[in-house]
Parts: sequence; C-alpha cells; structure tokens
Amino acid sequence: MSRPKPLSGFPEFLPSGRIAELAVLDIVRSTFELHGFAPIETRAVEPLDQLSRKGEIDKEIYVARRLHADAGDADELGLHFDLTVPFARYVLENAGHLAFPLRRYQIQKVWRGERPQEGRYREFTQADIDIVGQAALAAHHDVEIPLVAIDVFEKLHRDLGLPPVTLHVNNRKLSEGFYRGLGIEDTAAVLQRVDKLDKIGADAVRALLTDEVGLSAAQAAACVDLAGISAADESFVERVRALGVQHELLDTGLEELAALIRVARRSVPDRVVVDLKIARGLDYYTGTVYETFLQGSEKLGSVASGGRYDSLASDGKTTFPGVGYSFGITRILAPLIGKGKLTASRSVPSAVLVAVDNEEAREQAIAVASQLRGRGIPVEVAPKADKFGKQIRYAERRGIPYVWFGAGYDDSVKDIRTGEQQPASPADWAPPAQDLKPTVAGA
Amino acid sequence: MSRPKPLSGFPEFLPSGRIAELAVLDIVRSTFELHGFAPIETRAVEPLDQLSRKGEIDKEIYVARRLHADAGDADELGLHFDLTVPFARYVLENAGHLAFPLRRYQIQKVWRGERPQEGRYREFTQADIDIVGQAALAAHHDVEIPLVAIDVFEKLHRDLGLPPVTLHVNNRKLSEGFYRGLGIEDTAAVLQRVDKLDKIGADAVRALLTDEVGLSAAQAAACVDLAGISAADESFVERVRALGVQHELLDTGLEELAALIRVARRSVPDRVVVDLKIARGLDYYTGTVYETFLQGSEKLGSVASGGRYDSLASDGKTTFPGVGYSFGITRILAPLIGKGKLTASRSVPSAVLVAVDNEEAREQAIAVASQLRGRGIPVEVAPKADKFGKQIRYAERRGIPYVWFGAGYDDSVKDIRTGEQQPASPADWAPPAQDLKPTVAGA
Repeated sequence: MSRPKPLSGFPEFLPSGRIAELAVLDIVRSTFELHGFAPIETRAVEPLDQLSRKGEIDKEIYVARRLHADAGDADELGLHFDLTVPFARYVLENAGHLAFPLRRYQIQKVWRGERPQEGRYREFTQADIDIVGQAALAAHHDVEIPLVAIDVFEKLHRDLGLPPVTLHVNNRKLSEGFYRGLGIEDTAAVLQRVDKLDKIGADAVRALLTDEVGLSAAQAAACVDLAGISAADESFVERVRALGVQHELLDTGLEELAALIRVARRSVPDRVVVDLKIARGLDYYTGTVYETFLQGSEKLGSVASGGRYDSLASDGKTTFPGVGYSFGITRILAPLIGKGKLTASRSVPSAVLVAVDNEEAREQAIAVASQLRGRGIPVEVAPKADKFGKQIRYAERRGIPYVWFGAGYDDSVKDIRTGEQQPASPADWAPPAQDLKPTVAGA
Repeated sequence: MSRPKPLSGFPEFLPSGRIAELAVLDIVRSTFELHGFAPIETRAVEPLDQLSRKGEIDKEIYVARRLHADAGDADELGLHFDLTVPFARYVLENAGHLAFPLRRYQIQKVWRGERPQEGRYREFTQADIDIVGQAALAAHHDVEIPLVAIDVFEKLHRDLGLPPVTLHVNNRKLSEGFYRGLGIEDTAAVLQRVDKLDKIGADAVRALLTDEVGLSAAQAAACVDLAGISAADESFVERVRALGVQHELLDTGLEELAALIRVARRSVPDRVVVDLKIARGLDYYTGTVYETFLQGSEKLGSVASGGRYDSLASDGKTTFPGVGYSFGITRILAPLIGKGKLTASRSVPSAVLVAVDNEEAREQAIAVASQLRGRGIPVEVAPKADKFGKQIRYAERRGIPYVWFGAGYDDSVKDIRTGEQQPASPADWAPPAQDLKPTVAGA
C-alpha cells in the first residue's frame, strides 16, 4: 500500500493536535456540566425521510446503505447533518422518561456532503446545549444560554489561550415587531435581505427591500436603520425607540433583549453586543438569536450560534419549545491546530519515562511505573534497554519531561530540560502539577 | 410527527445511562493515558476499496454516499467497521510525523451492517490501544498490553461495580510450533477447527481434524490435548512439554507466554489464565492473543480482545508490526445499562438547585449559582419561581441532592435526602466529595 492521501473535508490531527482538541472538549464538557446540562448521545443515522424534510439541505446529506443490502431492507438511513434533528427525535421518542425542562448537551460528529473549502468540512464536531420545555419554556432561559457560551469561551481564552470572542445577539420579536409596526406583512422576506447587510452594504439592501419586497423608500430606510444599531448595553432601546415605531411584539423583543444584555454585561463585560442586523438564516428561530465571532478571525464567520425556537418537535398533542447554542468545535480548532496556533507541550500523556538498563531489569521498571501510575502519574517504560543518552533522546522526541533511572535498585529522576537529577522514591515522588499532563496553549 | 421508534441495532441511552457510559469512558481514557498512550481520532469514513479488502467482512460495510452525488465524484466511501483499518492507514499517511514505537489509543464509534441480535450492534463504541513499531517491536510489549487491559477492568470493577473479568491468553507461535512439531503443515486449518472446541466439543473437533484436515488420529488427539490445557501460572509449560512435542517456534511461544503469565500474576492475581484453546478468528495475529470474559456473563462471548500482528501496515519498504487490545464498550455496557444493572445516582450533573422565590430575585439566584460554579460545583437555577415544595420536587425528580434557598439575602442549603437545612455562604459552602458529581454503580 503506497502512502495514502488525506480526504479533503475530513480533517484529522496528529496526536499532539488531538491532545489539544481533547483539552478543549474537556473544558466544554465540564462547563456544560457545571451549568447542569446532562449528556446524551444519539446514533449517527436517522431515517432519510426525517433528515430530508428541510428542502434546502437535502443535497448535503450522506446516505448510509449496507453494501449488500437485502431487497426487503427497512427504510433508508442518512448520517445526521446537525445535532438538532436527532435531538428532536430523541425528545419525542423518550418524552415519557425525561424530566422537563430538559437541559442536555451533546458533543458529536456530524456530516455534510458540502464542497470542501476553507472553513467548510464534510465531517466535523459540534457541541450543542439546549433547554427544552414541554408546552412552555420561560423567557429567562434565553438569557441563561449565552452566559453558558461566554463561560465556555472565557475559559478557553484564559486556560488555553484561544482568541477571545464577541457574542452578537438580536431578537426576532424585536425585528418582526418593528417591521409590523411599519405595516410590513412579509417580515421573513425583510429579514432575509437584511441578513445580507454585511456582504452587500446598506444601499444594496435598501434597493432589495424596495425592488424585491415592495417596501416604500421610508420603510426600507427604517429597516436598514434598525439593522445598523448595535450597543454593548441597554442604550440600544432608546435608539430603537427614537426610530418612532410602535408595536406590541417590538416591546416584548426590546424587553427580552435588554434583560439579556443587562445580565450578560454584569457577568462578563465587553463580550456581548446587541447587534440588530443578526438574523440567522434558518427560519425556525422565533426569539433571541446568537452568533459568535473569534476576535481577529471574524472572516471565519460565526463559530457558534443558536437561538430560541417555539417548536423543536411536536407529537401532535404537545409542542416542545426550546433555546440552544451550537459550538462549531472543528470550525474553531481545525485552523488553529492545523497552523500550529494551538499545540500541546508534548505528543504523549507520559510525564515520566522509566529507563531500562538491561532487559533483566525490565520487571523492576514495570513495578516502578505501576507504583507511579497508582498515584496518578502518567508513565511509560522504555521500549528498549539502552544507553543513558538514547533514553534521554527517546523522551526528548516526545516531550516527556522526566526520565527515571535505576528503577528498583538506585532510583533517581532527571528533569531532562534542566539536567537536574536527584534520588527519588516511587512511593512519594511526583512531578510539579504543571508537568503532570501535557499543557495546551495558543500561540 | 408521531412517536418515533428505536432503530434496531443502534442503542441509545437516557441521560442517566449516558452519564454511566461517560464514567466508564473516563476511566478507560485516563487509564490509557496513565500508561502513556496518546490519543488519535480518525475520520468515520475510509475509501471503500480499502475497507473491502478483507473479503470476509465486506457484507457488513455501510457505504456513505452523498444523496445528490455528482457524476465526477471521487472514490466511494464506507463507514469504518473497526479502528484497526483506519489506524493502519493513519500510520502510513503520517509515518514521517510520528515517533515509533507509537503508543496510541482511540475511542470511537464503528458501524457494521450485521443482522441485529442480542449482543450484536450496527453502531457501537470501541476503545483500542496499540503499540506499533517501525520494522520491529520487542516481545515484552505483548506482556505490557494485557496489564493495561487488567488495569482498566480492575478499576471498572472497583470504582463502578462492573463484573470482574478473566483474561484468557494464548500464543499462536506456541500452537503453530506444536502443530509443526507434529509434522502438520496447514496450521491455520487446525487452528480454525480448534477454535470450535467450546461450541462442538473435543470429539467433534478430533473428527474434523482427521476428516477435513487429514491429520492422523494421534496428531488430532495431541492437538485437542494441547487445546485442553489451561493454567493460572507457569505450570502450563510442563504440561505442554509432557505432550512430548519439539519445535523451535513452540519454545519461543512457551517462553513468551510464560513471561506474560509470570508478570501478570504478580500484578493482579487470579485475573489472567493461560488458555491454549484461544485462537482468535482473524488470521492476522502472529503471536500472543487475548480474549476477555465478564465473570457471570461468559455467554456474551469475549468483550475485549486483541493480540500481536507482524504487519499492521506496510508501505512496500517498511512494515509496522504491533500489538493491541480492543475493548467492546457498547457490548459491555448496553446490556448492563439497558437492564438497569449500571446506573447513575442522578440524571443530571447538578449537585445543587438554586431556588427562586419570585422572578425579581432570579438575578440574585444566578449570581449565587455562578459563585458556586466558580468553585467547581455543578449548579442549576430553578426554571420557575415557585413554592418551597415544588422546588424540592423538581430536585427530587432529577436526583439533585441539595436545594439552595434565599439566594443573595438569606442563604441556606438543604440536603433534601435528610431534610437537614443550614445557613451557607456561596463563597465557601461545598457538598461532600461524594455528592459533587453523579456516582455510577453496578447493581
């Protein structure tokens, strides 16, 4: 077999990259758990007809079919393209065994048959949180969810040196209420055009709104003015009011968004901004919407996003409203790890290499290693009885900081970075805390 | 959408089951890391022609194809059916960037289009460790690998109450050397028949060996006698010697297996047995082979197995020999979790529910929760301002042990299991260690 080539769109990392990814995932998971989200994992496949209900996305689905499928085989399956569709199905399937409101997290691979390009993958990891109610879900959860997101990103920034993020929030009720207050009925059509503001500019959006949606020049101007409002505090309310539009739904939206920015500002200043042009393409959002940008990598687009939806799922009798956030783990990490901007201090977990002088002494080395492991220290035993210098080189190549010599008869441990060597007992020696595990840090 | 039905062969758990599974996976992963194995993750798909090289398994492959694949699309892909084929490809693809011997672990889903039945799944999680050398790999790694497996299973037994295991070991060199010493050439044919000993019995195997493989009655009897030998210590060597067969390869096999049982016995008595009928179906094993049985659930078959192979992969110039172990996580857990024999003490990570007296007090409750989380305590805030009793019931339903009352003005915390309530400060109160996270325990 000649050397295989990578498959475009299916990123893989070297061990040091995977160590970095796992450090990120550990923080994501532990933060979700600190906020009381319970884990679930769903199968990778769903019935194809369930996946392809949303017309816009069916081109991107991978069908999974047994190579020698029987004629009588059951319905066709497809790989899930997000974690929302499987979660909705899971909620309906298990509703009788779940306690609502249900707070769940889910960290899994998803697959999309997109054309691979910068920042687009065919296989990638997403980390989702959602809070889902039975029939109803209080508005304050819309405030809670972005606080969890900020908590995650602040820890990734502080502990691993990932870029800080800015979280942009809007509320569909605010925009829709505003449009209705202007006498506009097809609010979705307006949202779709306003969503292009960053790409095509204010003049072009105004033109689309008059030419395609049929708004008056004044209506179009007001819509674009609204989208131009952003603020890091509650001051946006007055600026919206100053546009002179009145509607009950607008009032609700303003109130919800003001509560969000008030609490978020107190929790972490300067990370959340109200940004009234955020629309989110998918049409199932019905209230608060969120997007997240890595500072300095805004061109990547939103790396984590979500919002409130009135109906995640419905069994005909009961509807399950919810609010959620989805973190594009691969989208954030693949560029950083690929370019060496996020790396681990070593390519193995081992803090210690136990040297072996000669093969007869191997069992003593294994005993020392076992004692150290019993106290939580990751250790490997040298694969080959070898000279001092070669043992050091073995450790150096992997970034293992300590080499243990004379296992079982003249125990000593050497910090190969400083050259310092001292007698040690496997019963009580431990490396400094910062050397126990590989450290992961951004460049 | 009416209530969806589970897909046969694709097991899923309720949150408490997933908490139990994650507790198992955390132990598996941390033990692998204590032994110096580095993590990798490979994509879910491989080129179909690479997956289907092994004729025997190609019926079981899931093909992954874009729903609207273009005519000019690249080679077809299939979902991996184990973690060995992808790892072999990964080693060849990245050999220049890897340090050998490479110790890697990999915990991922795999897919097989098998007919679903008790103990067989179409989607399941495997946890693999392998040590792979470039051109050569020392024999002592065959001793090391089962010690890691024992370490994993002993912790699962001790910490989570999973059943203890017995690890059965053999060595193909021993069997093959023995057969050759008897003058048999087609040793693979003998191994295949001997593999059926447990199912069909000694008489039937002897008959197959004479009728199908053409052995003499004496040869067949000797082969079956060899397979009947088992021991928990090195005494098996004498029993094999007593059969009076001589061969160089037999000597090597006896030596390797004796070293293994000697070291294993010292490490964990009574968990490893030499069992000379263990053959392992797959023909790429060339030395030590391992199988693992859950005590009391032997009928499940081997739940973790592996062995030594001379060639994991080859690029034409260099061959990569290795030794590995594969843990059937789903195979072990799905029956235990499904039957309630392995459960978590609660269905959410939260140790504390912060009660909310009225919606105006919510921000104070959020502040208390945030303070507790900052000290590593998983907390959720009550979704609804409600009466005392309803807050308790919310916590009870999820198994949350503590409810925090009077957040921010008259803080106290109640252990809802004992009813004991006492004043507490979010700045220093913490639950006892055993209540911090859900505990997972076998029945």
